[in-house]
Amino acid sequence: MAEDSWKSFFLSVFDYKTEKYVIAQNKKVGILYRVVQLAILGYIVGWVFITKKGYQETEESIQSSVVTKLKGVVLTNTSDSSLHLWGPEDYVIPSRGERVFAVVTNFIETPNQKLTYCAESPRVRDGWCRTNEDCIPDTEVIAGHGIKTGRCLKTGPNTTGTCEIFGWCPIERSRKAEKPLLGKAANFTVYIKNTIRFPKFEFSKSNVLDTEDDSYLKNCSYNKISHPYCPIFRLGDLVHWAGHDFHEMALLGGSIGVLIEWNCDLDKGFSGCDPHYSFIRLDAASVNKTVTSGYNFRYVKYFRDATGAEFRNLTKAYGIRFDIMVNGKAGKFNIIPTIINVGSGLALMGAGAFFCDLVLLYMMKKSTFYRARKFESAKNCKTNGEGVRKEEKSNKCLPERVQLTDLSPES
Amino acid sequence: MAEDSWKSFFLSVFDYKTEKYVIAQNKKVGILYRVVQLAILGYIVGWVFITKKGYQETEESIQSSVVTKLKGVVLTNTSDSSLHLWGPEDYVIPSRGERVFAVVTNFIETPNQKLTYCAESPRVRDGWCRTNEDCIPDTEVIAGHGIKTGRCLKTGPNTTGTCEIFGWCPIERSRKAEKPLLGKAANFTVYIKNTIRFPKFEFSKSNVLDTEDDSYLKNCSYNKISHPYCPIFRLGDLVHWAGHDFHEMALLGGSIGVLIEWNCDLDKGFSGCDPHYSFIRLDAASVNKTVTSGYNFRYVKYFRDATGAEFRNLTKAYGIRFDIMVNGKAGKFNIIPTIINVGSGLALMGAGAFFCDLVLLYMMKKSTFYRARKFESAKNCKTNGEGVRKEEKSNKCLPERVQLTDLSPES
Amino acid sequence: MAEDSWKSFFLSVFDYKTEKYVIAQNKKVGILYRVVQLAILGYIVGWVFITKKGYQETEESIQSSVVTKLKGVVLTNTSDSSLHLWGPEDYVIPSRGERVFAVVTNFIETPNQKLTYCAESPRVRDGWCRTNEDCIPDTEVIAGHGIKTGRCLKTGPNTTGTCEIFGWCPIERSRKAEKPLLGKAANFTVYIKNTIRFPKFEFSKSNVLDTEDDSYLKNCSYNKISHPYCPIFRLGDLVHWAGHDFHEMALLGGSIGVLIEWNCDLDKGFSGCDPHYSFIRLDAASVNKTVTSGYNFRYVKYFRDATGAEFRNLTKAYGIRFDIMVNGKAGKFNIIPTIINVGSGLALMGAGAFFCDLVLLYMMKKSTFYRARKFESAKNCKTNGEGVRKEEKSNKCLPERVQLTDLSPES
Repeated sequence: MAEDSWKSFFLSVFDYKTEKYVIAQNKKVGILYRVVQLAILGYIVGWVFITKKGYQETEESIQSSVVTKLKGVVLTNTSDSSLHLWGPEDYVIPSRGERVFAVVTNFIETPNQKLTYCAESPRVRDGWCRTNEDCIPDTEVIAGHGIKTGRCLKTGPNTTGTCEIFGWCPIERSRKAEKPLLGKAANFTVYIKNTIRFPKFEFSKSNVLDTEDDSYLKNCSYNKISHPYCPIFRLGDLVHWAGHDFHEMALLGGSIGVLIEWNCDLDKGFSGCDPHYSFIRLDAASVNKTVTSGYNFRYVKYFRDATGAEFRNLTKAYGIRFDIMVNGKAGKFNIIPTIINVGSGLALMGAGAFFCDLVLLYMMKKSTFYRARKFESAKNCKTNGEGVRKEEKSNKCLPERVQLTDLSPES
Repeated sequence: MAEDSWKSFFLSVFDYKTEKYVIAQNKKVGILYRVVQLAILGYIVGWVFITKKGYQETEESIQSSVVTKLKGVVLTNTSDSSLHLWGPEDYVIPSRGERVFAVVTNFIETPNQKLTYCAESPRVRDGWCRTNEDCIPDTEVIAGHGIKTGRCLKTGPNTTGTCEIFGWCPIERSRKAEKPLLGKAANFTVYIKNTIRFPKFEFSKSNVLDTEDDSYLKNCSYNKISHPYCPIFRLGDLVHWAGHDFHEMALLGGSIGVLIEWNCDLDKGFSGCDPHYSFIRLDAASVNKTVTSGYNFRYVKYFRDATGAEFRNLTKAYGIRFDIMVNGKAGKFNIIPTIINVGSGLALMGAGAFFCDLVLLYMMKKSTFYRARKFESAKNCKTNGEGVRKEEKSNKCLPERVQLTDLSPES
Repeated sequence: MAEDSWKSFFLSVFDYKTEKYVIAQNKKVGILYRVVQLAILGYIVGWVFITKKGYQETEESIQSSVVTKLKGVVLTNTSDSSLHLWGPEDYVIPSRGERVFAVVTNFIETPNQKLTYCAESPRVRDGWCRTNEDCIPDTEVIAGHGIKTGRCLKTGPNTTGTCEIFGWCPIERSRKAEKPLLGKAANFTVYIKNTIRFPKFEFSKSNVLDTEDDSYLKNCSYNKISHPYCPIFRLGDLVHWAGHDFHEMALLGGSIGVLIEWNCDLDKGFSGCDPHYSFIRLDAASVNKTVTSGYNFRYVKYFRDATGAEFRNLTKAYGIRFDIMVNGKAGKFNIIPTIINVGSGLALMGAGAFFCDLVLLYMMKKSTFYRARKFESAKNCKTNGEGVRKEEKSNKCLPERVQLTDLSPES
C-alpha cells in the first residue's frame, strides 16, 4: 500500500499541470489582448533587444588612461615682462600631459611686489573704513590681501577709505583687457591619446588610429566628417564645437569638456568599438550668464634682490581649462541576460492578461456571464471521512458542474 | 473546407482566452491573499513609485565642473624664513582652483641643504649599523636619504649607529610642533563653483545662487539653515561639520571630503534640482586612530650661491586636503519605466498567488478537497481517428465531468 | 436586499480564487517542466543568491581617499647637470602624494636656451622649406618651436632646409638614450594609503593593516601570497606584475594602473571587506605597439644671467605614471531585494510554463486532445433578463460541460 502510494506520488510528480483556460468568444477583448501582446512583443524585440541590446552582458566600469600633448608657440610683448615666447611648457598648466589641463590665454602681471605697507583694495568689503577705529590692528582683512595696521587711508574727510595693510604691495591691478594676450592660442593643437580597457571582457583599444602611416598622425586634424579618427584637435575648433567663440572665451577664461564616449558592441569585434567625441562648455549653466563663468588663477615667483630682500612677481592668469572625460560601456552576447529578458518580457504578458481580464469581467455588457465562466465555485461541503462525500440534497454546496462520482477516484 | 477552416482559425485567433479560476471559499487564505495583494500594492505604490520614483527615467552620468577659489591671508614668523605673508597663491597647492586642493596649515623647514656627507637619520632602519661592514659603499639606503659611503658613524663602541651617507645635508629635522603655524587658516574662505549637466535631459545648473545681488555672493557664508545656497565656506566650519577640530587637524594634516549631491526631480523643473552638501573626514577610518591619519608632503626650492654651488630649501608641509566630490542623478517621467514597473509589480502578484496556493493546497485541513477542485485530470483516452472518441466503459479514463458529446464540435 | 448584496460582496472579497489546472498525464512534458523548474530554481539559488548575492542591498558609490608616499634616492651624473641626488621631492611629480603621480625615470636636458635665432627642427613639417618664400615672416611654425623670420636655412642649393625661427635656442636635442638615467628607480617603494567609505552603510575601512606593530608597516613589502595586507610596493614589482619590464619601460616612459577593488560582504562584518590589488599597463592597447606608447613631459626653469638676460633650462622627462584606481561595492542583507529576487524568479516560472504549454499543445501527438482539455469554450448565449438563461436547443451555444441548473445560483 505504502509502496503503491509512493509510486503514484512519484508518477504524479511528472504529471504536467497546465492552467485551464476559458475561451471567451468576445472579439473586442480578443483583439485588445492581441494588441497588448503585440505591444509587449514589440517592446521586447524593438526596445529590449534591438535598442538596448538586452541579449548582451554589459560592462560599465571602463578603465581609461588619458595623455595629452599640446603644440604651438606664441610671442607676447607686454610692458612688464617684455618679449616672451610661450611654449607648451609655459602655457599648459600642469605641463605633465594630464587629463585636465588649462591653457593660459590671458594674464595680468603685478611685478616687484614687496612685503610692505599700502592701502587695501577698495573691492574688499572688510577693508572699508571711515575712521581708524574701523581698522583693528593686527587682524587679517577677511578675503583681503594683508594685515590691518590700524590706519584708515582716505582721500577726503567725508569719504569712505580703505584700511592700510601690511602685505605684498602694490596690490594687484584689476585691469580689464580688451583682447587676450595669447589670442593666437586658438591655433594650438592638442593630441589626445586615450587608451581604454574593459576588464570583464579583457578588451582594450586606443583612440589613436591603428595605422602604419606615421605621418598621418603628425599632420591630421580632427574633423567629425573628414577625419573622425584623427586624435589631434585645434583648440579654436574645440571651443567652436562647444558653441562658443575662442577669442571671447580667452579674455576671461572658461572651461571646456571634451567627452569621449565608447559605446562598444563587442559582438562586432574590434571595429564595433569606436570613440565618439562631443564638446560642451562646462562653466556656464546658461549661455548669457557672465557673473559666474570664467576661469582664472594666480601664481607667484619669488626672487631676492641684491640686498637679500624678498620680492615677487604675481601673475593672474586667465585660461581655458580642458577636461577630457571618458565614459563608455561594452556589451557582449551572454545567455543569462538573454533568458532573463525574454522571461521577464513574457512575465509582462501576465500583466497584460490581468488588464484584459478586468475589461472582460467588469466592463463588458455580458461581464456577469464571463465571471460565471471564469470563476468556478468550490464550496466546502461536509465530508464523510477522507475524500468520500455524502450526497447532499442542496445543489448549492456542490461545486459547479461537479459530479461527485467523478471525484472519488481522484481524491 | 480549407477556406472554412482558415476562417474559423482566423476567428479563433481573436477569441480571448482567460484562465479559469476556482473560488475556494476559504476565508483564511482569502484574507491572506488580500493581505499579500495589499503588501505588493503598497510596495509598488509606496516604494517603487513614491520613494524610488519608478515612473521616471533616470540619468546617473552627471557631468560636473568644479572651480574653487580661496581667500584669506596669514602672517608667519619663523626663525628660518623670517616674516612671511601667506596668500592663496602660496598656501593652496595646486593654486589653479582645482577640485582637489590642499591648504598648508603647518610646515617644517630645513634650509640650506647641500650635497655633502652626513649621518643617515636613525629612523631609517636600513641605515642602522654596528660596523663599517654594515654600510656597503655606493648603495642607496632603502627608504633613506642618500648613498652609503661605507663608514658607520657611532657615538660609542657598543652602540648602534647610522651609516654615513652622501646626500642633502643636514637631514630633515623631525620636530614635533605644538601648534600649527597657520592655525588662522580656519578663517580662510573657499568659494566652490560647481556646474553640473545631465546630458540625457539637456539640463544644466550651477550651485551658485542665480541672483542679481552680486554683493550677496561676495559676503555670504554657507550655513545649512540660514544660507543653504551660498557657495562660500569657512575652512574651520568645513572641518567642524565633518566632526573634527580644525586646530588639531591642522597640526598633522588630514583630508576632508566635501560631497555635493544633486538629486534632481526634473518633473518639478528648475527648482526641483538643488545641491545638498555633506562633509566627512576621509583619511581616518576610525576617529581615534592616529597611526595612519594625517597628510603631508615635501617640496624643495633650489638655489645657487655666489660660487655656483647648488643648495636647496626643503619644506615638509602639513596640510588639509579638500576633495570636492560631486555626484547626482536626475529623473524625469517616462512611459517605459512606468509600464515596466507596473508590469513587474503585477508579475509579483503571481508569486503571491503561488505562495497562497501552497498554503491552500498543503496546509489547510481540507487541502485534499481543494486539490481535487484545482487540478482537473485530463487522462489521455484512446481515440478513434481525429477528435472522435469511443464511448469508454471505464469512467476513470475520462476527464472529470466531461461529457464527450460536448467535445466533438470543439476539436 | 441592498444590505444583503453588500454583505455577500464583502464576503466574496475574501474568497480566495485560485487558477484551475488541468493535469495532463504526459510524462514527457511533465519531465520537461520539472527540468525547467529545476533550472530556474538553480538559477535563482546558484546565480542570483550565491554568485550575485541577490539577498543583499548593494552600494556602488564608494568614497575613496588615496594618499601616496614614495621613498628612495638615486644619484645621477650627466654632463649637463653634473652630480645630482634625486629624492622623492624631485622625481615624484606632483610631489603632493596624489592618487595619480609620475616617477621620472629618464630625462634629456637642454640647458641655457636663449630667446634668439636658429633653425627649426627638421622633425616639424611646417618648418620645411626650399626657398625663403616658404617661410612667411612673423608666422608661428605650426606645432613648432618659434616664429618664422622669413629666411630658409639650407645646407645645399637643391636640398630641403628648415626655416629660421626666433625662439628658445638651441632647439631641444632628440637623443635616443640607451639606458634610463634613473634605472635604479625600480627599487623605490611607494606607500599607498587608501581609505574607503560606503555612505549608505556608514562603513569605512583602510587598506593599511590595523596592526599595533608599527615597524611592520615600515619594513614590509607587498606580495600577493606572503604579505597581502602590506601597503608598501616596490616600483619594479608593480611594473613586473603588470607584465612588463621596468628598465624597458623606464627608457621611454609608460603608464601603470594599480587597481584596488573592494568587494565587501558586510554581512560578514569588518573582515568581509578586504582590498584586492591588480596591476595593468594603461598606455599600450597591445603589448608590441611602440608607436603610441610611452609617457613624457617637459618642464622649464627660468634664470637671469648677470646682465639681466633671461635664459632657461628645458628638461624633457620620461616617466612612469601610476594611476591608483579604486572601485568597489558593498552588500548587506535587506528584505526588499530578497523578496524582489524571489518574486521575479518565480515569475520566470510562468515563462517556463508558457514554453511547456507550447510543447504540450502544439508539438505532442495528442495536442488536439490537450487543447480541448485546456481551453473551455464559453460561448455567449442569449439571456433572459439577469442571469436567468433559456434552455437552448442547440448544444453548441453552451459552454462545454456546463449544466445550466448549476449556474443559476451563481450568477
